Amino acid sequence: MNSFGRIFRVHIFGESHGECAGVTIDGCPAGLPLTVEDFSSDIERRKGGTQKGTTPRQEEDLPIFKSGIFNGKTTGAPITILFENKNTRSSDYEKQRDFPRPGHADFTAHEKFGGYEDYRGSGHFSGRLTVCLVAAGVIAKKLLADLTIESKILEIGGESDLEKGLQKAIDAKDSIGGIIECRVSGLPTGLGEPFFDSVESLLAHAVFSIPAVRGIEFGTGFAAAKMFGSEHNDAIIDVKGTTQTNHAGGVVGGITNGNELVFRIAIKPTSSTPKPQQSLNWTNGEVETFSVKGRHDLCIALRVPVILEAVTAIVLADLMLLEQKIKRIL
Amino acid sequence: MNSFGRIFRVHIFGESHGECAGVTIDGCPAGLPLTVEDFSSDIERRKGGTQKGTTPRQEEDLPIFKSGIFNGKTTGAPITILFENKNTRSSDYEKQRDFPRPGHADFTAHEKFGGYEDYRGSGHFSGRLTVCLVAAGVIAKKLLADLTIESKILEIGGESDLEKGLQKAIDAKDSIGGIIECRVSGLPTGLGEPFFDSVESLLAHAVFSIPAVRGIEFGTGFAAAKMFGSEHNDAIIDVKGTTQTNHAGGVVGGITNGNELVFRIAIKPTSSTPKPQQSLNWTNGEVETFSVKGRHDLCIALRVPVILEAVTAIVLADLMLLEQKIKRIL
Amino acid sequence: MNSFGRIFRVHIFGESHGECAGVTIDGCPAGLPLTVEDFSSDIERRKGGTQKGTTPRQEEDLPIFKSGIFNGKTTGAPITILFENKNTRSSDYEKQRDFPRPGHADFTAHEKFGGYEDYRGSGHFSGRLTVCLVAAGVIAKKLLADLTIESKILEIGGESDLEKGLQKAIDAKDSIGGIIECRVSGLPTGLGEPFFDSVESLLAHAVFSIPAVRGIEFGTGFAAAKMFGSEHNDAIIDVKGTTQTNHAGGVVGGITNGNELVFRIAIKPTSSTPKPQQSLNWTNGEVETFSVKGRHDLCIALRVPVILEAVTAIVLADLMLLEQKIKRIL
Amino acid sequence: MNSFGRIFRVHIFGESHGECAGVTIDGCPAGLPLTVEDFSSDIERRKGGTQKGTTPRQEEDLPIFKSGIFNGKTTGAPITILFENKNTRSSDYEKQRDFPRPGHADFTAHEKFGGYEDYRGSGHFSGRLTVCLVAAGVIAKKLLADLTIESKILEIGGESDLEKGLQKAIDAKDSIGGIIECRVSGLPTGLGEPFFDSVESLLAHAVFSIPAVRGIEFGTGFAAAKMFGSEHNDAIIDVKGTTQTNHAGGVVGGITNGNELVFRIAIKPTSSTPKPQQSLNWTNGEVETFSVKGRHDLCIALRVPVILEAVTAIVLADLMLLEQKIKRIL
Repeated sequence: MNSFGRIFRVHIFGESHGECAGVTIDGCPAGLPLTVEDFSSDIERRKGGTQKGTTPRQEEDLPIFKSGIFNGKTTGAPITILFENKNTRSSDYEKQRDFPRPGHADFTAHEKFGGYEDYRGSGHFSGRLTVCLVAAGVIAKKLLADLTIESKILEIGGESDLEKGLQKAIDAKDSIGGIIECRVSGLPTGLGEPFFDSVESLLAHAVFSIPAVRGIEFGTGFAAAKMFGSEHNDAIIDVKGTTQTNHAGGVVGGITNGNELVFRIAIKPTSSTPKPQQSLNWTNGEVETFSVKGRHDLCIALRVPVILEAVTAIVLADLMLLEQKIKRIL
Repeated sequence: MNSFGRIFRVHIFGESHGECAGVTIDGCPAGLPLTVEDFSSDIERRKGGTQKGTTPRQEEDLPIFKSGIFNGKTTGAPITILFENKNTRSSDYEKQRDFPRPGHADFTAHEKFGGYEDYRGSGHFSGRLTVCLVAAGVIAKKLLADLTIESKILEIGGESDLEKGLQKAIDAKDSIGGIIECRVSGLPTGLGEPFFDSVESLLAHAVFSIPAVRGIEFGTGFAAAKMFGSEHNDAIIDVKGTTQTNHAGGVVGGITNGNELVFRIAIKPTSSTPKPQQSLNWTNGEVETFSVKGRHDLCIALRVPVILEAVTAIVLADLMLLEQKIKRIL
Repeated sequence: MNSFGRIFRVHIFGESHGECAGVTIDGCPAGLPLTVEDFSSDIERRKGGTQKGTTPRQEEDLPIFKSGIFNGKTTGAPITILFENKNTRSSDYEKQRDFPRPGHADFTAHEKFGGYEDYRGSGHFSGRLTVCLVAAGVIAKKLLADLTIESKILEIGGESDLEKGLQKAIDAKDSIGGIIECRVSGLPTGLGEPFFDSVESLLAHAVFSIPAVRGIEFGTGFAAAKMFGSEHNDAIIDVKGTTQTNHAGGVVGGITNGNELVFRIAIKPTSSTPKPQQSLNWTNGEVETFSVKGRHDLCIALRVPVILEAVTAIVLADLMLLEQKIKRIL
Repeated sequence: MNSFGRIFRVHIFGESHGECAGVTIDGCPAGLPLTVEDFSSDIERRKGGTQKGTTPRQEEDLPIFKSGIFNGKTTGAPITILFENKNTRSSDYEKQRDFPRPGHADFTAHEKFGGYEDYRGSGHFSGRLTVCLVAAGVIAKKLLADLTIESKILEIGGESDLEKGLQKAIDAKDSIGGIIECRVSGLPTGLGEPFFDSVESLLAHAVFSIPAVRGIEFGTGFAAAKMFGSEHNDAIIDVKGTTQTNHAGGVVGGITNGNELVFRIAIKPTSSTPKPQQSLNWTNGEVETFSVKGRHDLCIALRVPVILEAVTAIVLADLMLLEQKIKRIL
């Protein structure tokens, strides 16, 4: 249930304030060079604390290779990577344990796991585990060296001037959301399946495993619902399948058509807003005002682009292996 | 690859102009009463030809039970249901075989399957196979008799007055898209998983297997990206987890929170517009004007609500079985 | 649960006295020529009624293609094949419904499915469904045209002179079992995984889905437990990995080593012996003597070789696709 | 590929001379008490060095909990447990790297992974990883507290007097194999599926993931092939399904029948025999005599019983969850 993929298969585990967050990647081809340095750039991009609007919690996030790598290359056996938790302040969470925080998994985790869940810092539900997705994404991207996978933020708080959007939140002493777009070029035609494993199905499945995602749309997306067919259809203009426009976002009939893959996701405002909130007090059953403690991102969307690239790369690496576009031994 | 689900597992097969469309449902509990009549209403809702804007192709769509049902009840063994194709006019497709139709899978299917695909009426890629989804959905809904699952069209061609939206298309002699919303009430808390098998992941996966879907959003969805955290957070107001607002659409941390599940999808305009289009002529490599032949829906969105309910029910039946909220023998 | 395989994926459904037995094969490469005649020889080998010691029930067993085949070739979409049940005599089973037949699934099916199971002729538990395995095997074998897969009976009732073993059963008016060996030559090295998906794991998994199998052993098998390591080890004598002996039966560390794959299975005597038996009478809770009605095989082992080849081919086709030794488009 | 199970799902990773061997168990119910001490007894049973005939390599094998456990209980999130490798002597392996050791995975691993495999101490193919199976088995057994799962050695080197069998090997300066039996009592009826996921299929799948297993048989097993049906059939003598004999070994039609589950496995003699052997020298392509270095078991079968219990418990825990005989929250 904490796994994804058919050949390139990613398993995640761990907690926010436990020993570590970790990831096992099974089915990675043998012979891929892999060093700790390969992870630096993407892990750095994901980190909070380095830009305005992200959490001051600082983790070194050094990937610790536990298996599957030998002499600097993947062996074909499962790769396990750990990220130790060092900079935890669980006491923040003990104090507010009485309140299931709105927008957080406190209430649902409690219902699902009967109170046995590790609640410290959201435990296994924490955004901390996205470092595992990023790590798996780094490996997937190396397998997909011929592709260009790029995410960028389109809007913060409704503003395409991102500085302005962020300032709005700072001024309001509130958290804020955003829109992120991912584009992939260089894809072959023929990835994906007609129905259940359409490219959109698989990408959406992976994307909604990123906390705070509330929507996804491909190509023209929701705007397509307002268009005429003659506007929306992309005329094919050569035998390679190049299209004049790209309203489809690179997927037709669930299958990549060789044009640029384009999709966008909506990120909700960080649930841990600095503003005082109303919520149930579990100890007395009353609705009370409280303020979230802990160190949090004002705008979690700022950290999502690299995670979005990661899950996209995970999906595409798996599809490329399924379609034998990547070899089993490199 | 043409399968979905972990316990309540749906497999689809078939072609538009072949023998049949078919579905096998594995893992359905034993003892569920099931008759041909149970399917009538939902299959009727899916059918074209009965309302303005849908295809004049008429199929009787009588479900033919081939296995898994005995004395009017499910046996626990796999249930296979066929829908014969009777009313096919493949000649329409032979004529325009030279042109990979824009927006259709003609080009991508050809690339994926090397020209061996059954191209008649889009073959295995046809919307015809959604009758299989509807059939599986009928069974899933019967398992979920305590829930209310309802889809409705919110917009056609950007108009919430649906008549008006449709007329716009008819006037323009063009096809048109729409927005559909699905709501589920009566759900228990605790369905879904924190990351890869979040409720949103599974629903999105299933929903994008419906042809023509271009986007999905949960609760407030894309609009959440413009909100402050203090606005978006849903205050929990009692120990059952009832929330004052429902911006989350019933899912927090990937898990159902017991409030109404709400999500919307965007349907693109039917690719087979009556308007003449430009596209590649495969035989000479030139871009030429052509018109799509065959019998088509002006607005496929009109037929989607019941399919959306079906895939929703399929996902939820599977989750309810996983969480032991439905017994294995009824 | 009625499925097997990761890429070349086989689903079976149907009942002995229902409409049909059926099989869907998903993930078969596109472009494989396939005709009804391709199935004749193996289906004929499986049939009862043509040799002494097998059931007089005669089914034509004509494969009816329902999907996935177009212009005589596989399309890459799921292939569904049905075998209609015509020659059923359910009344035989109604009469003896009071007794859960020893060695049959009557009792366990009733417990598992709460009495909702189709009990006629063992319903979904019937050996009738092995025709589906044979059909999937025919397709798998065509994908593996470069390999030689051959099963043969080594013993009937403990006699390597099979005539003699069978005569023993006829004289005793009793049913009898046997030992069958399967050999595969031409395999590449490198199929399989070290632990959970070892070649032995996958073959054993598939083989035990054949009713009446009670044991499996690879290479020297159980006899290896009595040997010294210096005797059992197969010396590697060239760089291709050829071994001097083949005690390992072609699999080392879970992985094919390029030598002949060799394994044997034990088939129990047919549960439906002509001899009167003791068993519980469900209606009164007493143990009584009764005789099995219906048309049965005296020695079901006689029909198993072709089924054993089939499941072997299914496993190997899947592994060859996983290791990219078979292309996705032929 | 290094995973097994549908709900209670076990993933293994690691190498013999790398950082660690590790296991992740997903789908374990929340609320199961779990301490390091729970593992001591079974891990001790698996260890070499404490009895005649097993390896002098000593590992402390202390389970290190990395995730999924909080306040001494399982949380419902994935449980990861590591076993560090401390007592490694890789130099033994460097010296004999020229020879692919007969009976070991050296040759097949090299072919499968193109020379990128970690070859030290058999790397990921090492029996070292069975400590992970034992650990998962400890958890599974705790879930199955109402069952009795017991393995015992029936024969060493063909001798039921085990001392005698072992002495034979010591006298011959050779390694030796054995036969092990597993019995489970207390099982409910109704576990397993008719075909692909029969109890025998799943158990055999899991059992062949234990290195050195060469055969498995259920109930009377291979001997059944020599019996008459009237002898082999187990008469049902009461409404609970108790049978007079237990030739079936507790499984009929792929489904547990409530009687004792009984099966036996054959373990080959340890491949690393002290005797000099012939094998290919990779460096010159010649067949030469060499002796295996490293610390090895004379009779690996001595260490298998607890591993056999473990994989049996893993399979049964998964089936019990599927059939809702174990709750999701304890």
